[in-house]
Amino acid sequence: MNPSPATAGTASAATPAAAQRPTILLHPSGNPAGKPTTPYLLNCWYAAALSREIPAEGLFSRQLLDTRVLMYRLADGSPVALHDRCPHRFVPLSMGKRCGDEVRCAYHALQFNGQGQCTHNPHGNQHIPTAAKVRSFPLLERHGFVWIWMGDQPADPAKLADHSALDEGPASAIAWTYMPMQANYELIIDNVMDLSHVDHVHGEIISTRGQLSPIIPPVSERDGAITVRWEWQQQPPMGIFAPFMAEPAAPARHFLNVTWHAPASIQLSVGANQDGGPMDLAHTTGQYDLHTCTPASEGQTHYFFVTRRNHVVDDEGFNAFKIKAMHDAFVNEDGPIIEAVHNEMGTTDFFALNPVLISSDAAPVRVRRRLAQMIAQEGRYK
Amino acid sequence: MNPSPATAGTASAATPAAAQRPTILLHPSGNPAGKPTTPYLLNCWYAAALSREIPAEGLFSRQLLDTRVLMYRLADGSPVALHDRCPHRFVPLSMGKRCGDEVRCAYHALQFNGQGQCTHNPHGNQHIPTAAKVRSFPLLERHGFVWIWMGDQPADPAKLADHSALDEGPASAIAWTYMPMQANYELIIDNVMDLSHVDHVHGEIISTRGQLSPIIPPVSERDGAITVRWEWQQQPPMGIFAPFMAEPAAPARHFLNVTWHAPASIQLSVGANQDGGPMDLAHTTGQYDLHTCTPASEGQTHYFFVTRRNHVVDDEGFNAFKIKAMHDAFVNEDGPIIEAVHNEMGTTDFFALNPVLISSDAAPVRVRRRLAQMIAQEGRYK
Amino acid sequence: MNPSPATAGTASAATPAAAQRPTILLHPSGNPAGKPTTPYLLNCWYAAALSREIPAEGLFSRQLLDTRVLMYRLADGSPVALHDRCPHRFVPLSMGKRCGDEVRCAYHALQFNGQGQCTHNPHGNQHIPTAAKVRSFPLLERHGFVWIWMGDQPADPAKLADHSALDEGPASAIAWTYMPMQANYELIIDNVMDLSHVDHVHGEIISTRGQLSPIIPPVSERDGAITVRWEWQQQPPMGIFAPFMAEPAAPARHFLNVTWHAPASIQLSVGANQDGGPMDLAHTTGQYDLHTCTPASEGQTHYFFVTRRNHVVDDEGFNAFKIKAMHDAFVNEDGPIIEAVHNEMGTTDFFALNPVLISSDAAPVRVRRRLAQMIAQEGRYK
Repeated sequence: MNPSPATAGTASAATPAAAQRPTILLHPSGNPAGKPTTPYLLNCWYAAALSREIPAEGLFSRQLLDTRVLMYRLADGSPVALHDRCPHRFVPLSMGKRCGDEVRCAYHALQFNGQGQCTHNPHGNQHIPTAAKVRSFPLLERHGFVWIWMGDQPADPAKLADHSALDEGPASAIAWTYMPMQANYELIIDNVMDLSHVDHVHGEIISTRGQLSPIIPPVSERDGAITVRWEWQQQPPMGIFAPFMAEPAAPARHFLNVTWHAPASIQLSVGANQDGGPMDLAHTTGQYDLHTCTPASEGQTHYFFVTRRNHVVDDEGFNAFKIKAMHDAFVNEDGPIIEAVHNEMGTTDFFALNPVLISSDAAPVRVRRRLAQMIAQEGRYK
Repeated sequence: MNPSPATAGTASAATPAAAQRPTILLHPSGNPAGKPTTPYLLNCWYAAALSREIPAEGLFSRQLLDTRVLMYRLADGSPVALHDRCPHRFVPLSMGKRCGDEVRCAYHALQFNGQGQCTHNPHGNQHIPTAAKVRSFPLLERHGFVWIWMGDQPADPAKLADHSALDEGPASAIAWTYMPMQANYELIIDNVMDLSHVDHVHGEIISTRGQLSPIIPPVSERDGAITVRWEWQQQPPMGIFAPFMAEPAAPARHFLNVTWHAPASIQLSVGANQDGGPMDLAHTTGQYDLHTCTPASEGQTHYFFVTRRNHVVDDEGFNAFKIKAMHDAFVNEDGPIIEAVHNEMGTTDFFALNPVLISSDAAPVRVRRRLAQMIAQEGRYK
Repeated sequence: MNPSPATAGTASAATPAAAQRPTILLHPSGNPAGKPTTPYLLNCWYAAALSREIPAEGLFSRQLLDTRVLMYRLADGSPVALHDRCPHRFVPLSMGKRCGDEVRCAYHALQFNGQGQCTHNPHGNQHIPTAAKVRSFPLLERHGFVWIWMGDQPADPAKLADHSALDEGPASAIAWTYMPMQANYELIIDNVMDLSHVDHVHGEIISTRGQLSPIIPPVSERDGAITVRWEWQQQPPMGIFAPFMAEPAAPARHFLNVTWHAPASIQLSVGANQDGGPMDLAHTTGQYDLHTCTPASEGQTHYFFVTRRNHVVDDEGFNAFKIKAMHDAFVNEDGPIIEAVHNEMGTTDFFALNPVLISSDAAPVRVRRRLAQMIAQEGRYK
């Protein structure tokens, strides 16, 4: 399962090729030297925020892919995103004020609409320079997230994978959380694509009783999405499901189905049954989760998570308890390990450190290579 | 008013030219690689400290232009400035002790006089090596400031602009303040050379009631000094003057006259009258201010300010109130914007970011270009 | 005593030569670019820890020469050292758990023995990849220290200088301490090799009454060890010895003998007598000290110290008082000076700053040159 040295070197070998390209799209972050500034895939959707993070009024600013982005909602509720930098004197527009559907800069009161066009200049003859525009970013609001497109190609809604399963069911059976992490986003993808760590990192409540590690799970790819799947039996069932099953102490069949979509979303379904029925969410006590990561920078990641369950769906108290427990597990159990790895690596180029890979790395390694390939195809270094 | 791209590129185009020069003056900051270490104009006067900051006894150390400088006063009260680094083992001399008019190093007790000459070596045969000198810097004490000359050319007192207006009048009508800023010094110059921000950034007390922004103020240059001037009428007068005028609620004519002198001093006169008299400080209720900036480094600035007014000149309580109000406005209103701009830019090369300039930028842009030209003439990069 | 410019340049002149070498040993710290990562001498013994710092059970981690090192004791008490990084996903092994004489990684439970060999992989078919090894480092436990060998050549116990004098005598006459310093380790060596600072930096208790500074002490070299020696008379004797001497207020002869061994250990003997006997520890009231430094990085040092005295050897209270006093003197008196020098230098290349050297620098300069020469001989840059 270890990559040959030649294969492991593929990702970094893309650098010289990218350097030879005559034109490279410039990202809007301040880069006076004209060098490509991002190692990220750009023509795709990233989660910019939970829907609830962008208020009905007011301004919300977050660094995404090394660029500060201002987000706010128009009077009709639709969100807009602008480069959070006045093109005049480079003040963050988020320091300014809302004026209806527009934002006024805090320094000299230039005013911009939701498309980033300057609409008012109170100075001199009030002429608005043609260049007085702020880059705006296409947004999609779906499944309780606001998704952003930061690439140079036209935004393509079809590139956001279908997670409509999240939209079906009561509000008391779905919950979101947000976790800033001091680590490269690919380390978080690795963590979710390889669940063999579950019995070693996490506590009793999601223990597989040692059943997961010995499995060599099949990895498959379809339309660019990469899936890894585990099935096993354990007794008693996973702690998160046992209380809601017919026989909480009896054996149960379990499945975990984990699918990565570019750039950094991972859909995880997990469930268990005791009746020999099919291993899917329609026939198990289970849940549909979405992990999605957005780099703030190469060393800082916005980690978003949502979970919808198909049991005790009307219990708001349980809903709140469950999301808090999952949030705390990510922050207190996965988080310190992932951040320590990031610090120890001293690079974001995983393969350059010659990792000793094992069977459970098949899925995350395949994702890393696919993502590197996609970034290289965009003409950026990786 | 926007510069053509060719013009905007002038400043950064100076870099290759400077790089071709065969000899470049080395500054005394530690630079083992022999590269030019400062992007600053050197053969000129910078404010090193307020006079009151350098005590009659004791030692005062401050980083100026990337170099730590020790300042102290001789028994006769005259200030001296030395590179704050023992030439033996590089201990900051400010960690040592005063011995009369000399300073003794904390580590091995080498002693230096106010000219930087080693006068005592207690070790071995007590021989003083010829090279045992600390660089000393010429100082001028004027207008409540101690000014320093850090260049390689002979210090020229004529290069300090005449601000003797500050010296005329009672002590209860003049006040100084010091504000460390986490931003490049040119952003502070920009802020004072373009006062169109006043109605947008500051509060009621210096509001021009929207009169200032529509003006396209004339910019002029004489003997290297660049002046921008506004005149307007408003009702009521500016809040800082109205209470001291004949008719506090009636219209008044106002003027603002702002003059930059290299490298980083800006003299600002502002006044108002209601009798149709000339628009100058002799005929208005007004004040004479001096803003002066000294880089600690490219990203940190010592911002000094003094103001002398021509009204209520004997009220010490009002004097204290007024300087506190101005200090707080700079720190709490201008400061956060300037520091946010510095952070957002990610460079100190303003033009490299292709700013969209408007009419009110005429004066600060002219200052930036003039300063870049002067630095290039000294043979340093800009 | 000043070096000629040519001589002072020798150390840095080694850089280009080293750069031309075709093969350079790679250190285990993460360095994807394949450049030599350490400026340190590697084929030698450094103090990794005080013996008491490595517990009988549990794990102890410390950064040494830019590399995190995990240390623990086997059931038989012998210490082992491993690169503190799982070769699989680069988690610090110190985040894991002890399993008998082995350590289990916190992330995926790969298990390693004290030689760094992976002994268990719970995943898939449990195959252990051939490459699943952690680098282990030879250790020697002597004189209350655990010494580590981080070079590529076979560990050579003979390269650890003989300090068996530390082992002879009661436990109540020896004490150790550990002091982390924010400075390059060579500045600490300088400090101990040139004791002319004693009367200027330290207090009454070790004052030589001005006798030390005027001496030009002989410097000698034998088998690579460099020794500097002072002898003098003072009245009263040094404060640390006077109370234990026959006539505490009478004159006494003193000696200081200071010997550096590569890379960073300095043995210091100091004593006084009033009977005209030989100037050595057998015939004086005195003590045998060992200062030893290990770089954590170029700017951070682990400073270890041990002292054994030949008087009041059975007083445990005095023993505790004495080590605390010495620890506090190093931390509060030498420490701030050394750290300020490090900050002010802005480089670790002392000679590049053209220091003005005096007679007392003979020994530390000789050590610096010898060490630079040894590092260059290893084929690394200095």
